[in-house]
Amino acid sequence: MAEIEEEKQEEHEIDPAAVEAGEEEQTPVEKTAEEHLGLTDDFIRDIIALLEEEQAEEIRTACRDLSDPDAAELLTKVGPLRHRLVDILEDDLSPEVFSYLGYEVLNDVLGYMSGPHIASIVNELDSDDAINLINELDEGRRAEILRHLSRKVRAVVEEGLNFPEESAGRLMQREFVAIPQFWTVGKTADYLRAAADALPDKFYDIFIVDPMHKYVGSVALSDVLCTQRSLKMESILDENHVKIPATMDQEQVAHLFRRKDLLSAPVVDDVGRLIGVITVDDIVDVIDAEAEEDLLSMGGVTDSDIYSSTLSTARARSSWLMLNLLTAFIAVSVISVFEASIEQIVALAVLMPIVASMGGNAGTQTLTVAVRALATKELSSANAWRVIAKECRVGMLNGTFFAVLLGVIVWWWFDNLTLGLVIGAALIINLLIAGFFGAFVPITLHRFKIDPAPAAGIFLTMMTDVIGFFAFLGLATFFLL
Amino acid sequence: MAEIEEEKQEEHEIDPAAVEAGEEEQTPVEKTAEEHLGLTDDFIRDIIALLEEEQAEEIRTACRDLSDPDAAELLTKVGPLRHRLVDILEDDLSPEVFSYLGYEVLNDVLGYMSGPHIASIVNELDSDDAINLINELDEGRRAEILRHLSRKVRAVVEEGLNFPEESAGRLMQREFVAIPQFWTVGKTADYLRAAADALPDKFYDIFIVDPMHKYVGSVALSDVLCTQRSLKMESILDENHVKIPATMDQEQVAHLFRRKDLLSAPVVDDVGRLIGVITVDDIVDVIDAEAEEDLLSMGGVTDSDIYSSTLSTARARSSWLMLNLLTAFIAVSVISVFEASIEQIVALAVLMPIVASMGGNAGTQTLTVAVRALATKELSSANAWRVIAKECRVGMLNGTFFAVLLGVIVWWWFDNLTLGLVIGAALIINLLIAGFFGAFVPITLHRFKIDPAPAAGIFLTMMTDVIGFFAFLGLATFFLL
Repeated sequence: MAEIEEEKQEEHEIDPAAVEAGEEEQTPVEKTAEEHLGLTDDFIRDIIALLEEEQAEEIRTACRDLSDPDAAELLTKVGPLRHRLVDILEDDLSPEVFSYLGYEVLNDVLGYMSGPHIASIVNELDSDDAINLINELDEGRRAEILRHLSRKVRAVVEEGLNFPEESAGRLMQREFVAIPQFWTVGKTADYLRAAADALPDKFYDIFIVDPMHKYVGSVALSDVLCTQRSLKMESILDENHVKIPATMDQEQVAHLFRRKDLLSAPVVDDVGRLIGVITVDDIVDVIDAEAEEDLLSMGGVTDSDIYSSTLSTARARSSWLMLNLLTAFIAVSVISVFEASIEQIVALAVLMPIVASMGGNAGTQTLTVAVRALATKELSSANAWRVIAKECRVGMLNGTFFAVLLGVIVWWWFDNLTLGLVIGAALIINLLIAGFFGAFVPITLHRFKIDPAPAAGIFLTMMTDVIGFFAFLGLATFFLL
Repeated sequence: MAEIEEEKQEEHEIDPAAVEAGEEEQTPVEKTAEEHLGLTDDFIRDIIALLEEEQAEEIRTACRDLSDPDAAELLTKVGPLRHRLVDILEDDLSPEVFSYLGYEVLNDVLGYMSGPHIASIVNELDSDDAINLINELDEGRRAEILRHLSRKVRAVVEEGLNFPEESAGRLMQREFVAIPQFWTVGKTADYLRAAADALPDKFYDIFIVDPMHKYVGSVALSDVLCTQRSLKMESILDENHVKIPATMDQEQVAHLFRRKDLLSAPVVDDVGRLIGVITVDDIVDVIDAEAEEDLLSMGGVTDSDIYSSTLSTARARSSWLMLNLLTAFIAVSVISVFEASIEQIVALAVLMPIVASMGGNAGTQTLTVAVRALATKELSSANAWRVIAKECRVGMLNGTFFAVLLGVIVWWWFDNLTLGLVIGAALIINLLIAGFFGAFVPITLHRFKIDPAPAAGIFLTMMTDVIGFFAFLGLATFFLL
């Protein structure tokens, strides 16, 4: 443990006093880690002010040293002044900036660029970024841009678009380093040095292929560097290697990367030929996207739509609200059955939301845990019943605790012991049901390969509303009237 | 684009017919990518059956080739038979298996192991895994294990525990490769080959330090391999390099990795000395953990607790339910003000949950989008008001749409135009309020450095309940009585 560091420290014989003194020597222009985190709000506000005053020259100066992600962030956040900013920066924007833009902003920016101009941007991008960019375009636009691409890039993009969306084939880059089986470490090292200009900018593994270009194995660069030159590359193959079929779903690919702590992995076609490589930075994007999808769909939205127009946002969200309106009608139809009881004891109307809301919250707790555990594969059919049984016990336990608490409060508030007993009993029933269905519904949907995150929530709330109103009003009608 | 692959393909002169024929040659023992994804439920069920029959020998055979994460998954999913499985596999379990176990299962397994045994496991682990494992132990146990550790490991662990939780210092490994400033590429390559045994298993960058052991820069391994031996390492420094202060929060570290597409990054102490390295596989874990935290806290739970005991799960969840009970009382106290109105028009009691529930859902939609956009920094003070204004417009638009729909239904159902108008007006008010507070509350909490995910939801639902009940019952009392 920590041998390397210690060895180095000894080597340089660090004198603590010298270290303190050296503190001031640091080059002052270096950015701190925090500055690498992105643009400050003040910077963005300054640019917006300059845009309003149309100070083109000053904007160009201020933006000269922006990194690609920073430039993309700026384009995204200037809002309605975006077009003016693009006009000013047009020639200074590197093609990679466009690969950092989200769907809405990208289409806004590209919307008023000419086809040949966009094609010249795509021609410059890495294959995976080029495919993603074309994929984000509207159908009509896509055909126009494809026509203007260079032959080679067009072939790569069209081939890439043939892979299913969200598959390994869409994620992979076509630039990688592959060598024949019989090469030694020395020959490989010599080749890399000689061919440097033709190789990708950055790579992490060397892939070994057979004469049919079938994937044989991979060697991590650190192993190439640490092995004697005379040894065969085949002899230091990484035994942990996994080859990924091009059609594999990106969520599964991400799971593989996590599970095997991979940095890059080869992608093969259906006969096992090496056709690309997926690197972990693409996987980080996938993990972010999947997490976003889960979070948003639990909240009843399909897109992180803060840059969409008001109209399209409202339309996208209305379908969820429509579903909610329908389920709300089912719940209130239960209440309407008990109109007569409410007319006699108006306290029932006052108290009924409590039972429904506690059930809804307890159900959401269980649902959230189950959805997450299903996504991480912690929950599978092997332990499904154990989890459901536990959630019922938890519902029982919390139901009983809050039943006593709520029952006593209601007894004291309305001076009516039976009403307290009734609301307590209804609460126990509803929390038990919430625990059961909160686990059972997502597990069942998952078994039928339906994503549980969006569908389960609305169904569950309807359940807990219906059961909550029915149990409370029903018991009250039976015991109090 | 794709030059490398094409070059290789030409080199081997692939004959399509030969490729087809070669298909059968594949070694049959190789695992497919899917098999690397984890254990099948059938396998787990088989092991559980064998455990029940106490077939120790067969279990050992079946588990012989399990990878470390697979063994950890098995230990987690066998449930109450876990202790029996540990007894059987004890000597076959590699120390790394323990670093894949979650908090609950880890403490369960370690709970009945002796101190010296646990210490021998910790002694074998990488420094970051060792620190994490010790950190997961209960206070009392921790001191006992520390006493049994080797001097060197103990020093590293104790030093690591001094860094704040969730900081870069906790994430980093102390094993890395650092070289002096004046070395050439050739000298570096020779050193790596000669010192191979003392180097970490895998590494991705070579760090350059000055005589004070201060961090100067890093060189990617692919650049070492592709550069002429005579060049100085300093001349091929990665200009994109970022050094991370040991005290930086892990969420910020993850953000840096994302933004700069880093694979590994150096960690420095407060005077700039290189003290460790963070690799992207640790960042993937951080991203997963942060996404989990966001998702769970939106759902009102603090832990993915499917392996916790019933009692501790119920207790952890009850605090959220208690908060919900309090806010529910605030909402129903609004209803109780209008008891007299409800007594006269019982339809109000039937309909009031609709207004509240539509507002709650619309608010949750806005809140979810805002929480996510704040986490990804898409939403910041530079565009906060633009987002709030848009959410108000969306609320207005959907409010009006659903007001007309609901108003007509209610008019027809209760044959009462005024009631339809009243519920429509209440819905518009509530959806407008939901849009405003759904964006305003998380943005404000975030500005005061409070995590918006858990707190905002419960406050928002209270708001939409209170406003929903008050607007509907208040307008009804004013116009209908």
